[in-house]
Amino acid sequence: MNEDLASRHLNLIQDQRPAVHCLTNTVVQSLTANMLLAVGAIPSMSSDISEVADFTARSQALLVNIGTLDPLRKNAIQAAITSAQENNIPWILDPVLIDRAPVRLAYAQELIKREPAVIRGNAGEISALGSDPKSLARDNRSIVAVTGATDFVTDGNRESTLHVGHELMSRVTGIGCAGTAVLSAFCAVTDTAGHFDAVVAGLHTLGKTGENAARKASGPGAFAATILDEIYFTSQSSSTERPLT
Amino acid sequence: MNEDLASRHLNLIQDQRPAVHCLTNTVVQSLTANMLLAVGAIPSMSSDISEVADFTARSQALLVNIGTLDPLRKNAIQAAITSAQENNIPWILDPVLIDRAPVRLAYAQELIKREPAVIRGNAGEISALGSDPKSLARDNRSIVAVTGATDFVTDGNRESTLHVGHELMSRVTGIGCAGTAVLSAFCAVTDTAGHFDAVVAGLHTLGKTGENAARKASGPGAFAATILDEIYFTSQSSSTERPLT
Amino acid sequence: MNEDLASRHLNLIQDQRPAVHCLTNTVVQSLTANMLLAVGAIPSMSSDISEVADFTARSQALLVNIGTLDPLRKNAIQAAITSAQENNIPWILDPVLIDRAPVRLAYAQELIKREPAVIRGNAGEISALGSDPKSLARDNRSIVAVTGATDFVTDGNRESTLHVGHELMSRVTGIGCAGTAVLSAFCAVTDTAGHFDAVVAGLHTLGKTGENAARKASGPGAFAATILDEIYFTSQSSSTERPLT
Repeated sequence: MNEDLASRHLNLIQDQRPAVHCLTNTVVQSLTANMLLAVGAIPSMSSDISEVADFTARSQALLVNIGTLDPLRKNAIQAAITSAQENNIPWILDPVLIDRAPVRLAYAQELIKREPAVIRGNAGEISALGSDPKSLARDNRSIVAVTGATDFVTDGNRESTLHVGHELMSRVTGIGCAGTAVLSAFCAVTDTAGHFDAVVAGLHTLGKTGENAARKASGPGAFAATILDEIYFTSQSSSTERPLT
Repeated sequence: MNEDLASRHLNLIQDQRPAVHCLTNTVVQSLTANMLLAVGAIPSMSSDISEVADFTARSQALLVNIGTLDPLRKNAIQAAITSAQENNIPWILDPVLIDRAPVRLAYAQELIKREPAVIRGNAGEISALGSDPKSLARDNRSIVAVTGATDFVTDGNRESTLHVGHELMSRVTGIGCAGTAVLSAFCAVTDTAGHFDAVVAGLHTLGKTGENAARKASGPGAFAATILDEIYFTSQSSSTERPLT
Repeated sequence: MNEDLASRHLNLIQDQRPAVHCLTNTVVQSLTANMLLAVGAIPSMSSDISEVADFTARSQALLVNIGTLDPLRKNAIQAAITSAQENNIPWILDPVLIDRAPVRLAYAQELIKREPAVIRGNAGEISALGSDPKSLARDNRSIVAVTGATDFVTDGNRESTLHVGHELMSRVTGIGCAGTAVLSAFCAVTDTAGHFDAVVAGLHTLGKTGENAARKASGPGAFAATILDEIYFTSQSSSTERPLT
């Protein structure tokens, strides 16, 4: 069933080629852009205050990842969220490593007041936010996705648990961060009522392609390239378009 | 004939090992540095205002790519161009995504007044600059390269059309941006009168290695590594030096 | 003997999973994080002044690489070193390209007064610091590692020369920078008296995995992924844990 859901969303992404503007940490920008391109979305990454609202307004989703922040990027994040909300574009929050620094946790809590469509974190990050996933979702009218050995998705009422993925995904930097960008692309092709399904479909796609890549890759070095190939071929085989190769 | 031109320039790069200073967006810095190293050039990427003039002055070409800008990097770009012009070093402009934000377009138009040796963009980016490629080249005493399914190069008088490359190149982030860095390395080993040929030679090299890489790579993930290998072996086989492997 | 030393340190890293906070240039952040993950360490990379002291205090080593600096990152470097010293955490300096810009050299000389546990550079970088490696080590109570075709390590009294590595390592951006991060992970699992051995063990591991990767990789593009795989498998085979794949 998740397979069908994933396939349906991948088709929509292939047809619509959504633009996803990403304010994300510099460590993972390249992998994030490549994962979006592999799934069929169009990434952009400017954090310049003079243009970030324009880039966001012309996108179909906004990703906010709070790694490698600085004061300039924090200003850009506020401007981008404002632009997203004015243009009715979903924004997705990745509160990366908020369990490691109190100031970053406080910053994430401020951002959550602006009601992200989706919050995606690991167990440590989500529990640092101080409430259980269901309450967190309900209080902020967000979808909350807790990812790890199993993934859990809730909108405060519905919930879904996914047993997909591979431990090797945690040995490659940015697989989680880039994965949140992929969830943004899935949300970009549905309306608000569809975001719960979109997140489930996206996590299923990431987990299954991760399993396939782990089978094929010789180790963590090869894994990053292999999961991009897997995402690309999965998205192509869901499509009526011919693949590029 | 382009084959010979490419081979001749690759030899010069192997012999001279030109330094190319790159002010480029953070998404593509790693691929850009690796593509320069693969072709035999020496990359540097500092954008600190206190040292960018020194780095530029000790280089043989300057690349300016206006993605992921911020106010600090904008200052560095001005200082670097000034240093390039004082030291008679060609500077090459990649006006990435200027068709996506009016402020970025205006910024590119300001930069072009400083007469880059080469402007490299896709059709959308070049047409956003508001005139046809030939007029753009003539008005700014630049070489203009419009890249895509076919590549077109003009200096306002001469023109050359290249039918090389592979669609998969558009599914990997930074291939275009890193490609502009490679063009900078080609320009670094010729004088101004040779820049037209250098750009044609560089685009031929990128297109042919891209075709080879697309044949060998399993998908877009493997493609980035494979095109680096192809560029490296092409540059080594043009050389009298023994390859490193 | 170096083999045993390496194996012993790799075991400690597997057992302790040390956190290494990295203030490093944006070009190499992704490779650096992946190399730390491959060896079994936990990377973080924030340079935000509001949180860098927290991240450092919760780490077991601090890496300072002075590429792609800007004023914000310079402030963060000072705060991070202060935090490291207050918490008795070793900090490791990579004075990258100080032979290319006088301002950067002066900045490195300022930093060295704060007595890094280790200074790792190539011959050009170390000689730019104006004294021989042994005096540099003795004067600053640091371990000095000069890396290249052969590697040389000294603490001012002891010295060790290693004949490991492969020339292809110089054709991939960030292998040296990420390597310094790996040395930081080795230092993270020993006390100050053990840092000399830790650096020798780390350089041996990097050199040997580099040789293996050069044998297996088709070229410099494949090399980056292959050395990550080699580091991962070397670290796994030193461990009693089962590998992830």
